Parts: sequence; structure tokens; C-alpha cells
Amino acid sequence: MILGLDVLDTSSTHKDKALFTPGPLNTSGPTKRAMLRDLGSRDDEFIRIVKDVRSRLVGLGDGHEEYTSIIMQGSGTFGVEAVLTSVIPQDGKLLILINGAYGERMLKIVNIHRIPTVVLRTPEDTVPDAEALRETLQSDPAITHVAVVHCETTTGIINPIEEYGKIVREFKRVYFVDAMSSFGAYPIDLNACNIDYLISSSNKCIEGVPGFSFILAKIETLKKTEGYARTLSLDLYSQWKGLEGDGQFRFTPPIHAILAFRQALLELEKEGGVTARGGRYKRNYEITLSAMEAMGFKPYLSSDYRGYIITSFYYPAHPIFDFRRFYELLSEKGFLIYPGKLSHADCFRIGHVGRLHSADVKGLMSAIAVVLKKMKIKLTE
Amino acid sequence: MILGLDVLDTSSTHKDKALFTPGPLNTSGPTKRAMLRDLGSRDDEFIRIVKDVRSRLVGLGDGHEEYTSIIMQGSGTFGVEAVLTSVIPQDGKLLILINGAYGERMLKIVNIHRIPTVVLRTPEDTVPDAEALRETLQSDPAITHVAVVHCETTTGIINPIEEYGKIVREFKRVYFVDAMSSFGAYPIDLNACNIDYLISSSNKCIEGVPGFSFILAKIETLKKTEGYARTLSLDLYSQWKGLEGDGQFRFTPPIHAILAFRQALLELEKEGGVTARGGRYKRNYEITLSAMEAMGFKPYLSSDYRGYIITSFYYPAHPIFDFRRFYELLSEKGFLIYPGKLSHADCFRIGHVGRLHSADVKGLMSAIAVVLKKMKIKLTE
Repeated sequence: MILGLDVLDTSSTHKDKALFTPGPLNTSGPTKRAMLRDLGSRDDEFIRIVKDVRSRLVGLGDGHEEYTSIIMQGSGTFGVEAVLTSVIPQDGKLLILINGAYGERMLKIVNIHRIPTVVLRTPEDTVPDAEALRETLQSDPAITHVAVVHCETTTGIINPIEEYGKIVREFKRVYFVDAMSSFGAYPIDLNACNIDYLISSSNKCIEGVPGFSFILAKIETLKKTEGYARTLSLDLYSQWKGLEGDGQFRFTPPIHAILAFRQALLELEKEGGVTARGGRYKRNYEITLSAMEAMGFKPYLSSDYRGYIITSFYYPAHPIFDFRRFYELLSEKGFLIYPGKLSHADCFRIGHVGRLHSADVKGLMSAIAVVLKKMKIKLTE
Repeated sequence: MILGLDVLDTSSTHKDKALFTPGPLNTSGPTKRAMLRDLGSRDDEFIRIVKDVRSRLVGLGDGHEEYTSIIMQGSGTFGVEAVLTSVIPQDGKLLILINGAYGERMLKIVNIHRIPTVVLRTPEDTVPDAEALRETLQSDPAITHVAVVHCETTTGIINPIEEYGKIVREFKRVYFVDAMSSFGAYPIDLNACNIDYLISSSNKCIEGVPGFSFILAKIETLKKTEGYARTLSLDLYSQWKGLEGDGQFRFTPPIHAILAFRQALLELEKEGGVTARGGRYKRNYEITLSAMEAMGFKPYLSSDYRGYIITSFYYPAHPIFDFRRFYELLSEKGFLIYPGKLSHADCFRIGHVGRLHSADVKGLMSAIAVVLKKMKIKLTE
């Protein structure tokens, strides 16, 4: 190939901001550089790479031979919509446990597709009640499927998916877990949690770049869903059949994002797997929490429910605190934090995930202290 | 950021194959290197980049202020499904002009969504008949929308979208053009062709990497479609509203693919725009055709219908020609060609698009000559 043109090629001169967000996140240099290739989507080399990625994903969930993995083009929501619209039969009925915006989004999807659904809604600062789940399943035998979000990024709360899974198993229902923000950082044993479908995305705790979601599916359950899909693009069963058949995607895959993801998976293993990565994120969280509390900020969730993916902090009760200004001053210093998403409380969020280490977190904490001073806001007595 | 790990970082040592396919295609070095960044999807810098990309796309279609552009996560088919399922009302009826696999795919989509549809099917080696279109619109006033593929990659045929557009305008129907493989290489004047929705993708003639499709839409038509969408992820109207509102995507965008695409758009302009790029592809086509004919290969389409995106050639009428072996021997030499997709004839395809120049094409032609010799196949008398 002749690489003639070189317009505005400033790629190597950038120093990007540290992303303390729920994702897309900072990724490693080698992960990004894995994208410096041109590969045909139907070429043997790419087919081998996809196979390798799919098998490593099943391994991350301790899935063994009972599970398969399916890559779906688009964002995480595309993956959630793929599952919800591909595996519930016409006469099925869904129960969604909701305690945040991502549970609500599942409800929005099934409403558009007119899938019969009931919800168990809990306030955003508490986890759905396992006993209420049991009672609902007991009282409504028409329910065939149960869905819940593992880490509600709305608040950072961690829902007890294993406890729910045991109840869902008792009632022999099909169980979906949206583990978008947690997979790769919290150990999840698919079998122990009785998960039939787990959904996550390329740009979260595996530390790849955005471009696709992936689904870990129990083969025995998935096998029965032929013909259930309500779309062509998001047809989970057909996507699986294509990948299992000749190893190709039905439609053009995000080749470069998959190349980056393979590298990211290797780096996750090198780091020591999910436990080690979760450990690093937990340290990021602990440094954040203790420094923020020392500065006078209050976390939104009680400590029982807090996870180490992302933390919501109340806006300080200070007359001149202006979040937009706080955000922009931090951004100027090279740190991106995240606005809140709560319906009833003014909060902002700080993420602990992505290629960030203690030093980066300490950098953010110092920057927050400096910015508060600049804004003439004194929080601690 | 600390970029500690450096596992298997072989990115810079690769020499990739030349992709004579319909896409994903070869891209320039700077286009790939534009992905070496970590950007927040809600950060101002990224929002500005998206705005810039969207406005350049409208410019490429001479869209002026009557048109807008919408980026949709996923492959080209996701974009086609987004349009077909987002803009036809419940009481609408679609007419599809079909002369290849991509027309058939549109039919498959609308059948899944149970959208009332009629088809005008023509053999794969001829273009849909404009008079038949007129008669169908005349005889069936229930038809509200008309869809056609510009370049049917099945064969490489170019359908006369401007001629159809004039008829669709007479009957005041809404007009979709799937210009997946042609946009950026064939000049398309959206107004002159009376196009309401044009769909293309990031990894075709703009020479970006795969990751999204984009839709150029006539604002006046799009505005009337609120609430029509049959999915959440592929809801074209809401996607547009989001991008027009705070400039953000509703769901995580493929940031890196968009960064590469912006660079690819700059390079397209630098090359001299659509006319110059089309000129380069046409030269690639002419070199291919004359060398292939000299070696004894016959193109599938008559010259009236052939475009310069991709050419279908018959398998040679030689007893020992084996396409798989032919493909693999070329692949070993660093050239990827493409299998056929015809229902009734044995063909293979050679693409002319992507970052390939005359020297690359001549390289492929020499390789084909060598491979034929190695296979002991003599085609010319």
C-alpha cells in the first residue's frame, strides 16, 4: 500500500485526559496500537482472532463448555436490546428488578417491543429485595424471564446477583444480568449465579475501546431461541450461529475494536485476572473515598451498597458550589469526572476503572483540592 | 496515565494484505493513527469532532441546509435497519427495487418487522426498470416509501438512482437509497436525486475503519417521524435529536472509529473530493478489467451496467479451476480477493476501492498470472 497522504497527523503529540468516568475509559498504549492494522473481516487471521476472543470471554466467566460468547456490533445498549428482543418468546413475560437508570432502560426497550413485563422497583439507594423477587415469582407463574443490572452505574450500587440467581433457579426461570460496568472487575461465576445471559461491553473493565457489546450465554438456553428475534441486526441466535458456523460475522464487525480488545484481554490476564484488576480498582476507590471524605464530600450510598466501579458524591452543601465550573476546572487540569444521573438528588460521580493507577487517583484528589480553593469553597470545618 | 504493560505489542511490525474486497478496506496510516487516543464520549473535544464529521458528510452529498447527517453505531446493515424501522409509519407501505443480495436484505428486515412491502425484482445482471417503478406507483397508491440499492455489491452493478428519484418525486413518495458501497466514490446530489434518506458506512469509500453507519436525511421528512421507531437502539429520530441537542450520542459511540473517520474525511478532501477519488477507483477498475480480460477472464456484467466499485468475474471454464485454491494462493502473496454472492452463476469479485493505487492493482494482476501458472491453468488460446 502507498500511504501517501499525511493530513493533520497529530496522533502522537496528544496527551489525553484521565477519564474518571463509567466509560469509555483510558486504555493502554498497546491496546490502542493493536488497531494499526488493515484486516479483512472474512480473512482466516481475523476469524482466528475472533475465536480466541470469544473463548477467553467464556473463561473470564468460568463458563466452561456450558457457555458461549457472542460479540454484537454497537454499544452496550445494543447488546441489552439484542438479548431482550431475541430470547423471549411471543408468549413470554419478563420481570425486571429496577433500582436505577439502566434498569429503566431495559423497561424502555421491552415497552417499545411490546414484550409483556412487570417491574419490581426499589429506590436508587437500596438493592432490590430478594424476598420480593421470590414472592413475585410465586404469585405470577406467567413470568418466564428475570432481568437485573449488576452494577447500577447510576449510583455505583452493586446488586446481589448470586442471591437473585438462586431464587430464579428455584423457579426455573431464565435469568439475564446486565454486567456492563462490572464484568472483568468483579468475579462472576456464571454457573454459581445461574446466569443464562450476561451482557457487557468492550469499553468497560476489560479496558478495550468502544465498538461492541458481548453476551455470555448458556448454550442450552440459547439453543431454544431460534426464530424469536424481533430484529435482523440484533438477532442473537443468528449471530451465534454465524460465529459458530464459518466463524464470520453476519455483518461487518468492528475489526479494529476487536483487535484492541484481544490485546486488552491479554493484559487483563497479565495483570492477574479479574481478582487483581478488581484489587487495583478497589484501591482507586479507597484512595478516592478517603480523600474526598477528608475534603468534606459525602458519598451518596451507604457503605453496605457501595462498589468499587464508580462512586456518587453529593454536591457539597455550599452556597457557591457550581458543578459545571468544578467540572471544567478539573477538565482544564486534565481530569474528567462525571455528572450525576439521579432523579432525586444532586450528585456527581467519580469512576475508579480503566487504565488508572493510585498515582492518577492521587493526582485527581490534589486537583480537586486546588480547584475548591480556586472556587473559594471551604468544606471541612 | 501509567502505561505499564506491553504484552504482545507487535502492531508496528505487521505488513498487512491488500484488500481487494467490498470492505472493510485498506486505510491510510494517519487514519489508523488517529485512533491512538483516549477521549471521553461526553467531553467537549469529542462533541466538536462529531459535529465537524456530521457537517462534512452533509457537504459530501451537496446537502446544504436541507439535510442532516446521523451516525449510527454498528455496521451498514444496522443503518439500513435503523432507517427502515424508524421512518415508515404503522400505516405505511414500502416498495423495494431488488436486483441483488442487498435489496433482498432490506426485504428480510421489513419482513421481520412486519412492515407491509411490495417488491419489483429484476435479474441480478440488469437494473430495475424505471417504467415498471412508475407503473407500480401508479397502480398502488398505498405505497408511501421506495427503497433501492445504488451499487449492488452482489455484482457491482450501478442502479440509476437519479432516474428513479425523479419518478418517486412525481408521486410524492419518500425515497431511500442504500449507497453503502458508492458514497464518496460516485458523486450523489441528494437534491437532484430527490433522496430523503441515504445510508452508507464508515468503512467503504470514505476509507475509514468499520464501526458505524451514517444516514443523510432530508430534515423536513425526518422531522415527521417522531415515535415511529420500532427499536430503541436503532431509533433514527431520537439519535438525531440527541446529536442536535447537546451534541452527545444517546449510547456510547465508537469513539476511535469516529476519530479515524474524521481523518479519512480530511484525506478525501485533500485527494480532491469525490470526483478525484472516483477517478482513482476508476483507474483501478480499468487496469483490473483490461488485465483480467487479457488473461482470459470474463466479467459477469455487460459494460453498460458495470461500475468501478467492484467487478464480478466468472470462474474460468477450465476443468481444474478451484476458487478456494486460487484465493489462498493469492492470499499467500498478500492479496485478498472476494468470493461471489450470486444465486445462479459461479463468480468471484475484485474490489477497486480503499487506499489502493495503480501499483497495487498491477501487483495483484501479476500475482494472478503467477498463480494461474502455478495452478497449471492456461485461459487464453
